[in-house]
This record gives sequence, C-alpha cells and structure tokens, in this order.
Amino acid sequence: MFENKENRTELSRIGEFGLISRLASVFPATRADTLTGIGDDAAVIDTGGQPVVISTDLLAEGVHFDLSYMPLKHLGYKAIVVNLSDIYAMNATPGQVLVSVALSNRFSLEAVEELFEGVRLACQKYQVDLAGGDTNASSSGLILSVTAIGKADRDALTYRHTAKEHDLICVSGDLGAAYLGLQLLNREKRVFAENPGVQPDLTGYDYLLERQLKPEARHDIVEDLRTAGVKPTSMMDISDGLASELFHICEKSGTGCRIYEEKIPIDVKSAELAEEFNMNPTVCALNGGEDYELLFTVNQNDFEKIRTIKDVHVIGHITNKDSGKALIGKGDTETPLKAQGWEAFKDRE
Amino acid sequence: MFENKENRTELSRIGEFGLISRLASVFPATRADTLTGIGDDAAVIDTGGQPVVISTDLLAEGVHFDLSYMPLKHLGYKAIVVNLSDIYAMNATPGQVLVSVALSNRFSLEAVEELFEGVRLACQKYQVDLAGGDTNASSSGLILSVTAIGKADRDALTYRHTAKEHDLICVSGDLGAAYLGLQLLNREKRVFAENPGVQPDLTGYDYLLERQLKPEARHDIVEDLRTAGVKPTSMMDISDGLASELFHICEKSGTGCRIYEEKIPIDVKSAELAEEFNMNPTVCALNGGEDYELLFTVNQNDFEKIRTIKDVHVIGHITNKDSGKALIGKGDTETPLKAQGWEAFKDRE
Repeated sequence: MFENKENRTELSRIGEFGLISRLASVFPATRADTLTGIGDDAAVIDTGGQPVVISTDLLAEGVHFDLSYMPLKHLGYKAIVVNLSDIYAMNATPGQVLVSVALSNRFSLEAVEELFEGVRLACQKYQVDLAGGDTNASSSGLILSVTAIGKADRDALTYRHTAKEHDLICVSGDLGAAYLGLQLLNREKRVFAENPGVQPDLTGYDYLLERQLKPEARHDIVEDLRTAGVKPTSMMDISDGLASELFHICEKSGTGCRIYEEKIPIDVKSAELAEEFNMNPTVCALNGGEDYELLFTVNQNDFEKIRTIKDVHVIGHITNKDSGKALIGKGDTETPLKAQGWEAFKDRE
Repeated sequence: MFENKENRTELSRIGEFGLISRLASVFPATRADTLTGIGDDAAVIDTGGQPVVISTDLLAEGVHFDLSYMPLKHLGYKAIVVNLSDIYAMNATPGQVLVSVALSNRFSLEAVEELFEGVRLACQKYQVDLAGGDTNASSSGLILSVTAIGKADRDALTYRHTAKEHDLICVSGDLGAAYLGLQLLNREKRVFAENPGVQPDLTGYDYLLERQLKPEARHDIVEDLRTAGVKPTSMMDISDGLASELFHICEKSGTGCRIYEEKIPIDVKSAELAEEFNMNPTVCALNGGEDYELLFTVNQNDFEKIRTIKDVHVIGHITNKDSGKALIGKGDTETPLKAQGWEAFKDRE
C-alpha cells in the first residue's frame, strides 16, 4: 500500500538529519511541561520538582553492531553507556534506564544473560537502575532499544542552541579512536573470512579496540566542570563525529565556528593506525563518530578555569554566522568544515 | 561466541515472563528515587515534584504487526496508544512520547510520513507531545520503539501488587474483539493469497477490525473513576489477555481470585465471529490480548460508586492466595484459571 512508485522519495535522499528536521516541523511542542522537544540530546520535562531529562536510542544488528566481533556483554555495556552519554551531555545526572530487546530464536537464554551482564556492569559503574523495558521475539537478529532518564536543576541544563559568538570550543579526551578501532575489526574480519586458519592479530591495539567495544561516558568531565564552577554555554556528546556535532551546535545557535586542526586531540595510536590505513587522522576525528566524548562551548572568561581540567582541549571558537564554519589547517590554510557524520540511510541502497 | 551448544537453554523454554522475572532478580532497584522498577506497567521516578511514570514498548514487523493488512498510519496510531495505555493503567496522565524507528530501504519518505501521521493523530487526540526519538536504518523490516512519559500525584498512583482479599475485580469495555479482528484479517489474507482475484469481504466486521487496527486507551475510565471518587486498589491494562493479567495482579499481590464467566463482557459481534471460527468466546476474552481495556480492583465499599460508571463491569473478586485462581463457569462449574497470554518466545521455533 505504501509502494506508490509514482510518488516515492528514497530516505537516502534526505538522510537522517533531513528526516528528523521534517518530523520536528510537524511536531512542535504544544505542552507547557515539554521544556525541550525534538532536536537536542534529550527531551526535558517539567515536573514541579527537578526537570526530567530523557533520551532514547535504537540499536539494530547488522546496522549498529556486528556480533561476529562485538561480544554480547560489551554490546549490553555500550548500549547503556551511549544513552547515559546523552544525559551527561545535558549536564544532568542519569538515574534509570529502560531496556527493550527483540531477539530471534538464534539467541539462547545464556546469550541474553551475557547481554544483560554487560547492562548490569554499566548500571553498576554509573549508579543507575534498570527500571523496566520490554522483551520480545524478533523475526531476524537482535534489536536493542535503551531509554535513559536523568535529572538536573533547571538552570544547570545545557543545550545545543545556546552557544554565543566568541565562546571557546572545547572537546574532552581524544577523537577518531573508536572509528579506527572499527576499521581494525573490519579488516581482521575480512582476513579471517579469507583465511579461517589465521588468528586475528590485535595485539598493541588495545586502546583503539576498547574505544570501539567498551566506550565510557564522560561523567568525570561534567563533574570537573561543576567543581571548577564552569557552566558550558552549550554542550552535546560526540556520537556522529566532531564535524557533524559542530554543525548541530552552530545551526541551532545561529553561529559559525573556527577550529584549528592542530588543536584537535588525536591519540598517537590513532595516528599510527590511520597512517597504516592510508587515512587522514583529522578526517577520522572529524567524521569518525562513536567517541562519546563531550563537545562544549564556554565563555572566554572561563578560560583560566578550564585550562587546568585534565583531558579538556580548546580547539577553536564560535564566530558569527556569516563567517561560516572553518577548519584552519596545519599550514594556516582555511577550508570550510564539512559535516558527513553518521548518516543512517546513506550507503544502504 | 554465544553458540555454546552444551549449555544452551532455549528462550521458548522459560518464556517472556520467565525471562522478565529472571532479569528482575538480577536488577533490584538500588536508588531512592526509583519508586517502582521492573514488574509494573511503568517505572516510577521521584523528582521532588510529581513522580514521573515511564513505559516503553518495542514493536517488530513480522512479530507484532503485519503490514499486508496494517496500514502504516494505523500502526503509528496504535504504537502510541498502547504505550499511553500503560501510563493510564498507573492512574497517571501521559504528556510526552519518544518514538524510535528503524527502517529498511524498502520504506520511502512517504511511507515514513504516513506512519508519523498516525503518530500525530494519536498525539493530538491524547494531548501528548512527540518530544524526541531516534531514526535508523534497519537491515530488515520496520522496528518501532515507543517510550511514553506521564505524571501523577504520588498517592494517586495505582500498582499491580496492591489488590486485597474481598476487593471487586472490574474490567472496562469488552474483551476478545481485538483478537477476533486479528483472526479475521489472517483469514482474509490466506483467502487472498490463494485467490488473488477475490477481494476480501470485511463488511459488517467494522467493530472487530477497529479494535485490532485502531485501539484506544481508556483515559475516560480513569477520569470517570476519579470523578466518582474511587481509587482502584490495583490496576493494569489488558494487553496480553484477561487471564494473564489477572495472574500478574494475583501473584504480585499475594492473592487468589474468583471470576465469573457470565460476567466477562463480550460484544455480540465477537461472540458471532467466535462461533463462525468454532472458537469459545470466553477463551478469546481470557487469552486473546490487545484489547487495551483496564483491569482493576476496588474496595467493596466502592461498589455503589462504580456501578453507575458506563462501561465498567464487575467480573469477580479477589480471594486469599490458598483459594487459587478460579473461573466459575456458566453452569456453576469451577475450573482453575490458566494464563496463556501472549508469550513472545513461544511458537517461534
């Protein structure tokens, strides 16, 4: 019934972000207690007490994860962490998660228990409760849907749309490693498929693999900022790659930005593997995704306060909208920043 | 890695409810603000203001719906309604939903818009905002995950575990119709597959089809109870069939129950179609599921208050645990109630 060929627009033509902005225009928030609706890391709901911050993510086998190299325990852990990351990115503290799973009969009870062991470890580490969910059969593969719930004082919340001209742009940790870890796993999978007798050689790559298979959410940075008395003027987590996230902040804030290639933090292991793959490490950092680091902006007056926080790097500043979004290269060359990010519907024709 | 054949327990052996109770035992609520965790219609979270009530459901194509007779607009509508029903079943008022979708490239933008048109209509009718979600590619079919968020005063909330001996057992509306609507659609699908020239004849079955394809959540009953000054001693919605839901209430409340076959409300259209299919209409009502009516218990002293509420039927009473769960047949015969319900992992070998 929906195969009306005469009037068919492929989703790949408008992409995930195009689809979201179309939906957002059809679904304006109408209720006074919907403090934030579509378009930020999480929805924010007024309760009369602390506002509640809620985020949800759906992960599908064959799209978001590959069980041939992703152990189920790691998958359970990562599914929780990436959702908590959205809550921290609002400057809120997560307290509960709901986990829904759909499983084909390929999965045994023991497999489900392994998956939930990962969920349990993440809940324990981040001190959140698994408070509900849904378990279902699936006609193919494994589907995971996680909803994370947090709280924050209303004036502590940080959004994407509130960056101001001259603010400093900061990122935590280093970027590109999770993407390079994925490239490595894909390479070893291909090698193994061609030569089943050859054991994958992953020694020396622990850091990159851990970034891909067992990421952590940067609650430490949120706490360090609080301790330092700094409230970011805007914040989000880096799940789709630095460039794509910068685009979100600039577009929602009505600003431009200027970032410096030499300031983008890249681990030496990432740089080495990028070279091995003939890839540009800066491109991996800009477009790779899945680092779950925090991208935030602060007022210039807070520079002294943040420069002593471990693992926080100033990579540029917010400009006015007309200046565009610029990447200043190592030789002082200026190129317009491009947002590729993780476009769910691209390359899946 | 999880295909350890020597130690493999099929999920179908323990069933959905078995899996949920195993998970619940591994995940006790540890936080003071988790007022209710796994095991009720929704999780309840303390906020300092009104508690927040959150429920989530995952719907997978080929398991929960068949797009050959479920129009996408109806699917979007139903996905919202069944989640709101969980919120009303806690005696709370829903305010927001989050909707995640994963879609294969078989779906066009127009198809997605049809799906979200159904979401929009349901949001409009029940006065809730779509406040976020996630859009993704899927390697096969359509997956929908909906999270519904509501609020209630703390002492208004109703749970499953609080029914008391001698309480009256009530249901709203009528039961079994959604299941019979599904049987009808399945029959017409088979007829059409065998004789593609024959148009399905669904005239006269509007009520049963609507119950299956476009259910509504009983917010009117929740309001009527409030107006009448009755707070149910326990409540849940009927998604898996009356018998299965009664088992939940009795097991969580530590009680038994006694219900009377002749009191179970069954629409005349349901009875007629059951006869046509050689089915027992009582069995359809007990085990059919998807009616999204409310099952609740009230103190006997409230009988006069509820008997004038339209569409509420007293079908029995709560007994002590040792009396078991009994169905009193039309000839005064007593049989133990069996809970079949919708067991996600059964019959899917």
